[in-house]
Amino acid sequence: MSKPKVVLAYSGGLDTSVILKWLINKGYEVITYTADVGQDDDFEAVRRKALACGATKAYVENLQKEFVTDYIFPCFKASAIYEDRYLLGTSIARPLIMKRHIEIANEEGAEYIAHGCTGKGNDQVRFELSAFALKPDIKIISPWKDYEFLNEFQGRPDMIAYAEKHNIEIKKTQGKSYSEDDNLLHISHESGILEDPAMECPEYVYSKSVSPEKAPDKATRIKLYFKEGVPYKVENLDDKTVITDPLELFLYLNKVGGENGVGRLDMVENRYVGIKSRGVYETPGGHILREAHLDLMGLTLDREVLKIQKEASLKVAEYVYNGYWFAPEFDVVMATIDACQKNVNGDVTVKIYKGNANAVARSSETSLYDSDIASMDVHGGFDQYDSKGFIRVCANRLIANSKLKSKLNKNG
Amino acid sequence: MSKPKVVLAYSGGLDTSVILKWLINKGYEVITYTADVGQDDDFEAVRRKALACGATKAYVENLQKEFVTDYIFPCFKASAIYEDRYLLGTSIARPLIMKRHIEIANEEGAEYIAHGCTGKGNDQVRFELSAFALKPDIKIISPWKDYEFLNEFQGRPDMIAYAEKHNIEIKKTQGKSYSEDDNLLHISHESGILEDPAMECPEYVYSKSVSPEKAPDKATRIKLYFKEGVPYKVENLDDKTVITDPLELFLYLNKVGGENGVGRLDMVENRYVGIKSRGVYETPGGHILREAHLDLMGLTLDREVLKIQKEASLKVAEYVYNGYWFAPEFDVVMATIDACQKNVNGDVTVKIYKGNANAVARSSETSLYDSDIASMDVHGGFDQYDSKGFIRVCANRLIANSKLKSKLNKNG
Amino acid sequence: MSKPKVVLAYSGGLDTSVILKWLINKGYEVITYTADVGQDDDFEAVRRKALACGATKAYVENLQKEFVTDYIFPCFKASAIYEDRYLLGTSIARPLIMKRHIEIANEEGAEYIAHGCTGKGNDQVRFELSAFALKPDIKIISPWKDYEFLNEFQGRPDMIAYAEKHNIEIKKTQGKSYSEDDNLLHISHESGILEDPAMECPEYVYSKSVSPEKAPDKATRIKLYFKEGVPYKVENLDDKTVITDPLELFLYLNKVGGENGVGRLDMVENRYVGIKSRGVYETPGGHILREAHLDLMGLTLDREVLKIQKEASLKVAEYVYNGYWFAPEFDVVMATIDACQKNVNGDVTVKIYKGNANAVARSSETSLYDSDIASMDVHGGFDQYDSKGFIRVCANRLIANSKLKSKLNKNG
Amino acid sequence: MSKPKVVLAYSGGLDTSVILKWLINKGYEVITYTADVGQDDDFEAVRRKALACGATKAYVENLQKEFVTDYIFPCFKASAIYEDRYLLGTSIARPLIMKRHIEIANEEGAEYIAHGCTGKGNDQVRFELSAFALKPDIKIISPWKDYEFLNEFQGRPDMIAYAEKHNIEIKKTQGKSYSEDDNLLHISHESGILEDPAMECPEYVYSKSVSPEKAPDKATRIKLYFKEGVPYKVENLDDKTVITDPLELFLYLNKVGGENGVGRLDMVENRYVGIKSRGVYETPGGHILREAHLDLMGLTLDREVLKIQKEASLKVAEYVYNGYWFAPEFDVVMATIDACQKNVNGDVTVKIYKGNANAVARSSETSLYDSDIASMDVHGGFDQYDSKGFIRVCANRLIANSKLKSKLNKNG
Repeated sequence: MSKPKVVLAYSGGLDTSVILKWLINKGYEVITYTADVGQDDDFEAVRRKALACGATKAYVENLQKEFVTDYIFPCFKASAIYEDRYLLGTSIARPLIMKRHIEIANEEGAEYIAHGCTGKGNDQVRFELSAFALKPDIKIISPWKDYEFLNEFQGRPDMIAYAEKHNIEIKKTQGKSYSEDDNLLHISHESGILEDPAMECPEYVYSKSVSPEKAPDKATRIKLYFKEGVPYKVENLDDKTVITDPLELFLYLNKVGGENGVGRLDMVENRYVGIKSRGVYETPGGHILREAHLDLMGLTLDREVLKIQKEASLKVAEYVYNGYWFAPEFDVVMATIDACQKNVNGDVTVKIYKGNANAVARSSETSLYDSDIASMDVHGGFDQYDSKGFIRVCANRLIANSKLKSKLNKNG
Repeated sequence: MSKPKVVLAYSGGLDTSVILKWLINKGYEVITYTADVGQDDDFEAVRRKALACGATKAYVENLQKEFVTDYIFPCFKASAIYEDRYLLGTSIARPLIMKRHIEIANEEGAEYIAHGCTGKGNDQVRFELSAFALKPDIKIISPWKDYEFLNEFQGRPDMIAYAEKHNIEIKKTQGKSYSEDDNLLHISHESGILEDPAMECPEYVYSKSVSPEKAPDKATRIKLYFKEGVPYKVENLDDKTVITDPLELFLYLNKVGGENGVGRLDMVENRYVGIKSRGVYETPGGHILREAHLDLMGLTLDREVLKIQKEASLKVAEYVYNGYWFAPEFDVVMATIDACQKNVNGDVTVKIYKGNANAVARSSETSLYDSDIASMDVHGGFDQYDSKGFIRVCANRLIANSKLKSKLNKNG
Repeated sequence: MSKPKVVLAYSGGLDTSVILKWLINKGYEVITYTADVGQDDDFEAVRRKALACGATKAYVENLQKEFVTDYIFPCFKASAIYEDRYLLGTSIARPLIMKRHIEIANEEGAEYIAHGCTGKGNDQVRFELSAFALKPDIKIISPWKDYEFLNEFQGRPDMIAYAEKHNIEIKKTQGKSYSEDDNLLHISHESGILEDPAMECPEYVYSKSVSPEKAPDKATRIKLYFKEGVPYKVENLDDKTVITDPLELFLYLNKVGGENGVGRLDMVENRYVGIKSRGVYETPGGHILREAHLDLMGLTLDREVLKIQKEASLKVAEYVYNGYWFAPEFDVVMATIDACQKNVNGDVTVKIYKGNANAVARSSETSLYDSDIASMDVHGGFDQYDSKGFIRVCANRLIANSKLKSKLNKNG
Repeated sequence: MSKPKVVLAYSGGLDTSVILKWLINKGYEVITYTADVGQDDDFEAVRRKALACGATKAYVENLQKEFVTDYIFPCFKASAIYEDRYLLGTSIARPLIMKRHIEIANEEGAEYIAHGCTGKGNDQVRFELSAFALKPDIKIISPWKDYEFLNEFQGRPDMIAYAEKHNIEIKKTQGKSYSEDDNLLHISHESGILEDPAMECPEYVYSKSVSPEKAPDKATRIKLYFKEGVPYKVENLDDKTVITDPLELFLYLNKVGGENGVGRLDMVENRYVGIKSRGVYETPGGHILREAHLDLMGLTLDREVLKIQKEASLKVAEYVYNGYWFAPEFDVVMATIDACQKNVNGDVTVKIYKGNANAVARSSETSLYDSDIASMDVHGGFDQYDSKGFIRVCANRLIANSKLKSKLNKNG
């Protein structure tokens, strides 16, 4: 009888290496899967280590292009931002990573998947909800929510001992005193020394951006071009660099943003599991993209459509943060976004300087701005006398309310 | 028979001086009213000019304190922001200015009020809606929406000619090539040379903030203390300045922000009268206050309460922008905000540097953050096994949906 | 020089006949346009009267089919209802009527259109906003907002005198003591004797439905079939009548509803112009359609999608009521609705009896209901143990909040 | 050493009696608690049975008054309705029942509480979330989510065998073929034979209302008086009955409603645990109360306040349905509701007839309705000429949009 097969999300770190071996020791055939979503890593080494640990096969999948075009861009088109500040850098990657995970499980005929997320975080939810949505009968092994595993591994020393016992290579560099999630879109830093929200995050923690203080003393101006809410070209107005490939374009925004100290964020947020956590984020390119997109919506979206976009964006952010990318409500709200963004075409000039990324100019073929009408010149545009009636009719409700108040004040 | 009495909102500029004289020539007794909401002006000169032009009385009213405590702070407690970016600097002042306007009309027994707003802007709406709400039978003279006035004054030259004819003093400094609204909270710049949204706003336009480039090379850290969402103390962590008086506190935020290039904004927005306009804003203190308040909400507000706050804040912004401060819906939504903000107590440290104002640390006696639970340590806090059930139950909907999809795909 | 041409919305009644003649007397060439949206009228007589009054041409346009398929069905698919109760019977017809009005103006090369709506109601807004949206340079003559006309006609006697003077035929039947708007979807009754909201509407006012008291003593059961939220077949389960043509189907719902006293409504509502009015409505078929559609959504819509549908339906109702059918926000929100309704397929059995129309059974190929899982049987469906974790994790927020409360109570 | 103490929610039925004995056999001291929220039951018999089964103490608590004033009335003031139709009859009672449960646990020094809800329903969630919110360290025993219990009791026969073995009295009346929840506000019927949503619910299932067919042939008119959204008097306009005591008032509405076949509902709804279920409800008094309250809001609420009320009501419904009565967001949203309802004073006449309950007349001292202004008379009220300007300004957006469309059509 063949062993049960499990596809394990594998990072090459201590935790997932221990899990790999533990699964083998429990009688599973383990295939590892490592998603390359742009994190800074030696994927070849990861692959080798997986096989060294006993994996029968080790997938390393480059998902960067798909990440940018099918995940990052739609979310920014939706102007999704969680709790007014977080650009969802980790959240957006999760459904993509799981999609490929499930595909591999299907291709390999594996009944099981496994991951190394803890039981207090958001990522377990995002991964597992995506898995259930994509393959309702999937069996998920999550050791950090498994009493047997938890009993065996009470802490890091147990894992190191297990690793040593089973000849798992341990990086000499002792793990960082906080945890990180890195990808194309952002890097997050949390827990460990960052757990005290009253303590400012030390400068050495940041890795995707220089501090504003260390950024160049001269501003950079880029022009970002959009079609239907999606960027398709970036132009550096200073050195005339032009990029149109989506992945390259986004990497370029990261580069410009990172070099200029753009996109840092330190906040306390609400996890889906109902607890608050403090996160420090660096999202250099995303920050610039959002600024430009918001600005272009000002020029091209009707006022009421902009309100609908805003409400939909709150939903998208919540769905993505909580792990509902493959949920029916996500499809519906993205249909709303698509309808909103049809005319979000044009270009925005962003001035980038020491942590700031500010839209300073914009133009569009589908602009709804009309300088003749907007002009404060009294003659031209619509008949200003009409405003008299407009205001008077808008006041009808207020007058009725005011009269009632007076009446009640008199009586009471 | 006595003349009809009108209280005219008077700035001392060409327009309202001409209106003053025009009203007198039409047979009105004119009382002027000038609200000091912190704009940079020589109020004594304004008063003198009003009387010189023929006003029978000239009110100059210092509304600064009330502006901060009863208008600015409530709006920032509501985290109100219009179209994701505009901090409502002009909008917030309008109801206060009109409230005093109506009080003076009542005190003086004047049947009429008059103002010099144009018929295309938001301010006419904000003023007049406030007026109707406060005094339903008020009669409003708004010359820029009056055909007789418009026929007489086809442009600026007609006004100058009229002024000269009637010995109205005209400032030698030719008017700026754009219009401004200045108060404690912000200064706006719009129209004229700023009408082309594709042209970057020239540096000389800015007056309440230095450019980030010219700001000090060293960051400033301040600590802002809140009670129920309202700031009550600011502390400069570098030079140990401490301020608690609300007006002084806000002026201090303006000073620190302005010196460090904080709070500039250039955007295309949607006016209530249905047209788009481009505005350039400087809101140094407001920008810092908002950043700190948002950050403290992250620490102290329950997740679902934060969502309610967000939705209410969108309403507050819309109501304030459109001129509905004295509307019944405003009272209701502020009751919501008050309920949300009960526990928004604590302090936030903001790092201010060359245009940036970022919360970097925060603490609160009413914090809902619990580092024991937030910790990624697997042991401690709640039983992580529970997350398994949580996710599985959350997945119920997704599984049902996924199964239906599969069924339909098979059939279709 | 040719006369200016105006297309007048013409009902054949006293008001629009007087307007017709008045326009001619003012020098216009008048073409009349009468939309047949299912109201009870003698359209041939209307046409004759128009020509007799001096119209150079008299259009009578049957818009019934389009009304059902392109206006009524989309609105009910959107489950739009205004202020929780009004099914928008008048509102929905207005954009359609104006669309054809503008087409005729274009075909006839008329610069002007005219209508006989008063200046206090919603219809003027709906018509004119539609007109501006469809033809921004249209010139609209609305005599009831024209001082010249208002001065000439101070009341009904003036109109009668004018009609007599100009040989306009006046129906002997003295006008009703309240006003009505009749079409396929509903009839409204308002103003006149109905202006006192404390007075029950007399039975004789109702014309599209018998009173529940006079309805048959036996219930009727119909089965309504939907595809993507739109009804495509109705089946009378008692007499086996089957109808599939959209217009006939809707007329049949009206017939069954009207005979059984279904769809009466008496309410005070808020007009877009900011005043309250009391309306009495009869919407027999619409009432049944809504009941069935709501019920089918319960079976086929995911919970979160249902919430989105609900929010969108509130928007649709507001837009339609206020006259924004041809606004960009309407297109966006209908894209949301379409996305929501993709799986709203199936049939609903409605029991109709003396004013009641209640869904009593339903089934669907795209149902998300699973009786195995829904069953309260403890074994079967998902592992109930999972609910333990679900609840515990959902409680995390509440526990944190509760602990804070206790702490504050102790301290305070 | 003393035994651990548990307070068990006890109904006297087979399930909770078996649980009672099972807990004793596991070594607990069991105190039973039976809440009287108006269900039809012999509470003295329940108490005796509890003691006979071995409970050391048996609480029977009459919570009816509190249920009406502190739970039902606030929810109806909030016009809360779940998924457009369900009046939350079961949901509203749950937090009250648990509040007393926890109080008893505190009074008795019991560490544990227990209940007999299954693991698929909403009630377990409502009870347990309330428990955690009120007493974060409470220990909850829910046997239907306990593997040991589930293994021992695979089905009803096991329970009967256990009961017989332990001399637990079993009612001769074999259990109904569906389950019910009964209280003052409603009775629900679900599962069992009702699990097929395509099968009409048999008439014999209904117990709180006669069928419309069997209801009197003559309408009943009652007048319901409200203060701040809460009913304080009911008057039967036919027989002049007047009732003011809150509990008696509500019971009277139930009586009138039930006798006239009012308040039946058959729907498929979405449970919080993510599954759909079919429920049949009878809420006679609640149905009348809601109708009257909605109607009075039409007369007394400003249009924009009504919108806020609507949005808040959706939240209240969701919170209550899902079990978040004691959550911070509930307090906030009820503050909103309170602010909205301040002027909801007056009376509404409801005509009740064979399943119908329709508001037919209403009046209020705090009405915002003004018949002079509402009147379609052209003279009187506000100047209708103002509507011209109102519409023209409202059209500004539409015109801009329309012009853009034309431009794009030409180009494209």
